Amino acid sequence: MDKDLPQRMTPEEFRHWGRRVVDWIADYWASVEEFPVCSRNAPGEVRAQLPPAPPQQGEDFDDFLRDVERIILPGITHWQSPNFFAFFPASVSGPSVLGELLSAGLGIQGMLWATSPACTELETHVLDWMADMIGLPHRFKSSGPGGGVIQDSASSATLCALLAARERAEGMNCRQSGISLPLVAYASREAHSSVEKAVAIAGLGGGRLRLVEVDERLAMRPRALAEAVHRDREAGLHPFFVCATVGTTSSLAVDPVEEVGRVCAAEGLWLHVDAAMAGVAALCPEHEHLRQGLDCADSYCVNPHKWMLTNFDCDCFYVADRAPLVGALTVLPEYLRNAPTESGQVIDYRDWQIPLGRRFRALKLWFVIRYFGVEGLQSLIRKHIALAGEFAQWVAAHPDFELAAPPSLNLVCFRHGDGEEFNRWLLQQVNASGRSYLSHAVLDGKFALRLCIGQANTERSHVEGVWELLKDLAQESCP
Amino acid sequence: MDKDLPQRMTPEEFRHWGRRVVDWIADYWASVEEFPVCSRNAPGEVRAQLPPAPPQQGEDFDDFLRDVERIILPGITHWQSPNFFAFFPASVSGPSVLGELLSAGLGIQGMLWATSPACTELETHVLDWMADMIGLPHRFKSSGPGGGVIQDSASSATLCALLAARERAEGMNCRQSGISLPLVAYASREAHSSVEKAVAIAGLGGGRLRLVEVDERLAMRPRALAEAVHRDREAGLHPFFVCATVGTTSSLAVDPVEEVGRVCAAEGLWLHVDAAMAGVAALCPEHEHLRQGLDCADSYCVNPHKWMLTNFDCDCFYVADRAPLVGALTVLPEYLRNAPTESGQVIDYRDWQIPLGRRFRALKLWFVIRYFGVEGLQSLIRKHIALAGEFAQWVAAHPDFELAAPPSLNLVCFRHGDGEEFNRWLLQQVNASGRSYLSHAVLDGKFALRLCIGQANTERSHVEGVWELLKDLAQESCP
Repeated sequence: MDKDLPQRMTPEEFRHWGRRVVDWIADYWASVEEFPVCSRNAPGEVRAQLPPAPPQQGEDFDDFLRDVERIILPGITHWQSPNFFAFFPASVSGPSVLGELLSAGLGIQGMLWATSPACTELETHVLDWMADMIGLPHRFKSSGPGGGVIQDSASSATLCALLAARERAEGMNCRQSGISLPLVAYASREAHSSVEKAVAIAGLGGGRLRLVEVDERLAMRPRALAEAVHRDREAGLHPFFVCATVGTTSSLAVDPVEEVGRVCAAEGLWLHVDAAMAGVAALCPEHEHLRQGLDCADSYCVNPHKWMLTNFDCDCFYVADRAPLVGALTVLPEYLRNAPTESGQVIDYRDWQIPLGRRFRALKLWFVIRYFGVEGLQSLIRKHIALAGEFAQWVAAHPDFELAAPPSLNLVCFRHGDGEEFNRWLLQQVNASGRSYLSHAVLDGKFALRLCIGQANTERSHVEGVWELLKDLAQESCP
Repeated sequence: MDKDLPQRMTPEEFRHWGRRVVDWIADYWASVEEFPVCSRNAPGEVRAQLPPAPPQQGEDFDDFLRDVERIILPGITHWQSPNFFAFFPASVSGPSVLGELLSAGLGIQGMLWATSPACTELETHVLDWMADMIGLPHRFKSSGPGGGVIQDSASSATLCALLAARERAEGMNCRQSGISLPLVAYASREAHSSVEKAVAIAGLGGGRLRLVEVDERLAMRPRALAEAVHRDREAGLHPFFVCATVGTTSSLAVDPVEEVGRVCAAEGLWLHVDAAMAGVAALCPEHEHLRQGLDCADSYCVNPHKWMLTNFDCDCFYVADRAPLVGALTVLPEYLRNAPTESGQVIDYRDWQIPLGRRFRALKLWFVIRYFGVEGLQSLIRKHIALAGEFAQWVAAHPDFELAAPPSLNLVCFRHGDGEEFNRWLLQQVNASGRSYLSHAVLDGKFALRLCIGQANTERSHVEGVWELLKDLAQESCP
């Protein structure tokens, strides 16, 4: 390979620029605290700096890194900052980034087992590891009729679960004949918006999603679920799917999966458990309540790309029975026919997901689990939960602040006593300071600040920092 | 950042191992020709080499690269080999891999404009560049009501197009009320299987997809489409969506988009154009027939991750009007509310796709376009098309081989004169040799070998190599 053609970066150039990018990332990580956490860009600011037309001739790679620093960096919010406490975390790690890099370099397609056996088999294997690590029931492992797959997101996992449930409810005939029953789905009021999106995509219409009442801990009331199912049956509708949440987005409330599962078993409903971030904490035996009731679940998902140091995208999605999932999603055009597929001996993951193509995502998860070991990952989870517990104590002990919900794992929802307007101002001030980034929640109709601790590089000092900032801002404003 | 905690790879370690991985990839690319193109693994071979349980303590990164060589490499098919001629290409490039690496290191989430403005704005901007590069009508650019977004695959683009079409057909009410009309979709018999999959996911049922007859060039017959639409209307059904293909998977046939578009306009149908691989050739003005009729299209997609040196996943999806797409897919839970979204001044790409989360995929496309320049990308396309043309000439001139379809762009379908069984044997022998990798197609009911040229590192010698191999195998078998 030489550079006599304009369309080639030679191996030597790749080595050179690859080192530069690796060093750039190492430097970025080392200095990430120095940037304002939340981007201060105004709409259009990035585009205004970009040329209106693409270059006709190739440009120097050197310019790209300069432009990344000049144009891109001010326009990003630093999700890797130790002062990032908004939404859910997305902490990456060295071994994960290098797994992603290797995957990009290999450039293979894993749509079929046959198009790269190792891509499929490593994924199946590492997902079996994960199932054991977080204590999933054996039936989610690949040794039986179930198994795991990497999805891009919990949203896609929820959609796939709903489509499999729809297929089963329609006698494995929906794929061919379309929706014939008046299907109804259920989730708690606090469930993630992806349930609503999945119900819409599947053609049921948002009106066929029941948002079930929650209790004072913001977890689904199983009795309210049972009543809703009963009402719908009375009305001639066809209940088929329940999404229980292990760790809601707003407050990490945990639905009582066991009781919800009993309702599902009695009524013949598909139970999907969305444990997107909180499920990772099930790595630690002391959080085994996060695994309760999963024997009744038909599907489950957890996101290493949130709280397990793995780059987006890496959602681990499990089904207890592959048949309805594959039944809903399989395609086998002539150009994909091959002997291993026809032997029935292999998994073709194209039938477990929406897209056909797929990259080698298991590499990064394999690297993360091996590099940190189960104990390393556990210690990180424990550190974050301990820090959140300390923060919650500071809030609870302060006369002007209060907890807005029971603290759960690594998440604390809290507020100042001076009402919504003041809390909105406080949030805006914290985020505008650049020193920290929080998000918000509305719990029981009341506005709250929301702090979630999940970055690998967050230390006690960073949590103290945002607490001091909050107190100072509150004090300054009421001298 | 130091390594007193087990859960941290220090910046210095990252620099060290990052260089190792970069060098490993450079070495891999330099030697990729030496591997058997298609993996020879048997089912279970990879898993048999992996420990049944994950490690409790962390392991050395050094071991990972050893295991990649020992376990993974024999289990992959080398999509980056210059002798890979199967399916569609997935050629990566240095700048693309480094863009992916940078994206992984930054580790940001682009679900909302507000969560990293540069992620959204660079994507919008580079997709406008792409629209100009391939000559899309102006209405697909972001300056009007339309615009582009990166999807993971053409499958997802087709699904999103179908969902937007469904929303429009149902008076923008499907999202809330579900499917109320007897909707019918259309594509040619040669269209990609993702159309069937999308129709199934959307809840219409495969029975509501009409596979329209094709002509002798395997392109959709617009008259047959018009007749099918007419028949369905007569039967009380509701035609709503047509997928035209620019470059079918089996033979790169190009549907007559202009005539198909006229039918769609007359009948009020959504026209989606799936130009997954072939659309890239529209970079070259001499292939402007690939752009014909797009004024009538409602949506369009093309995959730089196939034939434009960009890592999977990177499908560019365009709509002429965002409203039905966003109408079908938007969610706005409280925890995602933010001022820029409410101002209406920004694009939130979560509403343009199935998942909520999204990584910074525009970086790699930006790097590719800038590094190679439009002219560099054009020259690569031209080289591949010229090589395919030469191969087609060799086939046509040989007494024992024949073309199975008119050669189209970089794809040649051909066969030996000795019948299907012999051709299957030939394919099996070529692929088992490890020296090359072809796939197959069935055209008009007849089996054909299929050669697609799209790797950046494929030279004339590689194409000659597979031709010599084919001739030798054919000769040996009939001495």
